[in-house]
Amino acid sequence: MITGDSKKAIVISIDAMGGDYAPDCTIEGIDIFAKSHKDVSFKVFGDESLILPLLEKYPYAKKSVKEIIHTDSYVKSDEKPSVAVRSGRKSSMGLAINSVKQGVADACVSAGNTGALMAMSKLSLRMLSGISRPAIVSVVPSRNGRFVMLDLGANIESDAADLARFAVMGKIYCQAMLRVENPTVGLLNIGSEDIKGRDEVKEAARILKGNPEEINFHGFIEGNEIGQGVVDVVVTDGFSGNIALKTMEGTAKMIAGSIKDGFKKSWLAKIGFLFLLPMLKEFKKKYDPRIHNGAMFIGLDGISIKSHGNADGFAFSKAIEAANNLVKHDIKRKIKESVENYHILSELL
Amino acid sequence: MITGDSKKAIVISIDAMGGDYAPDCTIEGIDIFAKSHKDVSFKVFGDESLILPLLEKYPYAKKSVKEIIHTDSYVKSDEKPSVAVRSGRKSSMGLAINSVKQGVADACVSAGNTGALMAMSKLSLRMLSGISRPAIVSVVPSRNGRFVMLDLGANIESDAADLARFAVMGKIYCQAMLRVENPTVGLLNIGSEDIKGRDEVKEAARILKGNPEEINFHGFIEGNEIGQGVVDVVVTDGFSGNIALKTMEGTAKMIAGSIKDGFKKSWLAKIGFLFLLPMLKEFKKKYDPRIHNGAMFIGLDGISIKSHGNADGFAFSKAIEAANNLVKHDIKRKIKESVENYHILSELL
Repeated sequence: MITGDSKKAIVISIDAMGGDYAPDCTIEGIDIFAKSHKDVSFKVFGDESLILPLLEKYPYAKKSVKEIIHTDSYVKSDEKPSVAVRSGRKSSMGLAINSVKQGVADACVSAGNTGALMAMSKLSLRMLSGISRPAIVSVVPSRNGRFVMLDLGANIESDAADLARFAVMGKIYCQAMLRVENPTVGLLNIGSEDIKGRDEVKEAARILKGNPEEINFHGFIEGNEIGQGVVDVVVTDGFSGNIALKTMEGTAKMIAGSIKDGFKKSWLAKIGFLFLLPMLKEFKKKYDPRIHNGAMFIGLDGISIKSHGNADGFAFSKAIEAANNLVKHDIKRKIKESVENYHILSELL
Repeated sequence: MITGDSKKAIVISIDAMGGDYAPDCTIEGIDIFAKSHKDVSFKVFGDESLILPLLEKYPYAKKSVKEIIHTDSYVKSDEKPSVAVRSGRKSSMGLAINSVKQGVADACVSAGNTGALMAMSKLSLRMLSGISRPAIVSVVPSRNGRFVMLDLGANIESDAADLARFAVMGKIYCQAMLRVENPTVGLLNIGSEDIKGRDEVKEAARILKGNPEEINFHGFIEGNEIGQGVVDVVVTDGFSGNIALKTMEGTAKMIAGSIKDGFKKSWLAKIGFLFLLPMLKEFKKKYDPRIHNGAMFIGLDGISIKSHGNADGFAFSKAIEAANNLVKHDIKRKIKESVENYHILSELL
């Protein structure tokens, strides 16, 4: 079995058929990633007749793809997770996940249907012992850098014990992805005082305060603090987390749209726009969501990475990079050890 | 008793001592509002020795303030709601609320402690019959206009019946504040499909679908759609609503901050900035949060308006304007009639 040991060569399985621009962008993504990572090899799952010509186009991908596992079947973007679980085992997504389960790959990456990927990953990889629910976790840009946020929608409700485990997993994810040694952890709430908020959030705060050596707990944070980079890890239930993340995206889009409308309206603004181009480029780069592409279903006994469905080649390469980081960091083992050894978690059911 | 009938003169009670810049900004706010609303008169509650000199400074305020009710006591910004309820009856906030209860004023406005204002308003004004929980409702700017959102944090949890009542109250609030005849109503959720989300949200959707003539129900909306102006009224529980609203504020601040940082960094950008000034001014005006100042504790048997704590005179005048609009629109009677007559609500406990 392949372990996360960084001395061994890393193998990543790719669902070549998932996403809006598959398989072109999935193969291009491998190519971009492989250019600077010669030590990683790939198993690619999907339609061989489409994949082979693409490998001729992308020489780095061709070099690093060690195996194409052909399948005609793939999970549709609007397929119900329950249907995918029943009939998707032979699909490119199902086979890619299974390769992780079998231990012939260290991680899998798919830009396909989120619900199906989560359901199939859960069923195939199972939970890590000590974890009752997985969470969706990702890196998010803030004003002064980046932070980690979870759960982004794996669960619609979470109790205090779930939130405490999310905090521990989020800490380790942050260490792996952002190289922050002792990340600060904040619980999303609707007030900063101890007495405010939902019971499960208050109880989770009590647990997380229990051992500062295990969790560098900041306390509650509010919605307006998320983007300010107040903490390295934001912990919340999947309902609020999904709403907060999407609200951030929507607000950024709303403002960008308003600015664009303004540029269009006046000649003066158009001239100003020319002077601003270098700054706007830098700005766009900083907040480019493609850089942070790749969310993990954390808590599973295997690394399954979800890429945005509309990812281009560059964005998909970033999801592969996330998978590679997490394997190298041996995240599975680190989560397992923390869940087993952290005193703050030992009292939880 | 004073009714909301627009033919009668409207009386608004002001907690002159609430907020970061009280009483200067509360009196200035009255002055700004009174300049264009000669038909509204005010009762002002607070320290007479501070208020009287301010009235000399603000002639329109002086003209429209019919009574100063002196009190030394006021609710501190960090006072616990439970303490305020017990000992704040003689405070400027408590007396202002009570004047609405007594029927000697049509509405009250305070920029003081939110928790205290809500607790005291609830206790004094009581719920409208048929409403089990009040909600905090406000107007929020979107890309193409404005919309109404509730609950913004009055409750930490809400069941399907609460959400359905919020939808009805939100509709009427929208009619009063935005003059939209038949507002579209959306339920905030983490997916647009029927099967997604929390049980109470799904059940609320089922109720709201029940009668298109009563509620123009759009269906679920997601976080990224909030700022796009997809619906006129966004309905959600107070936990998610508070997080979504504050996340919008925080994201806008984050982007504005990044743009400012960019202007500072380069000379080219500084030149561009000069060309953009007219556009940025317009932009700032459009998203100026002061314009939308004034949230209502909707569902109470009386109009109690909360102004932002750091409101300046202009912002406070907008909270007074909100109170005036709601009185003129006779919102209390309209909510009462809807709650009693709407078929979709008749099945609810």
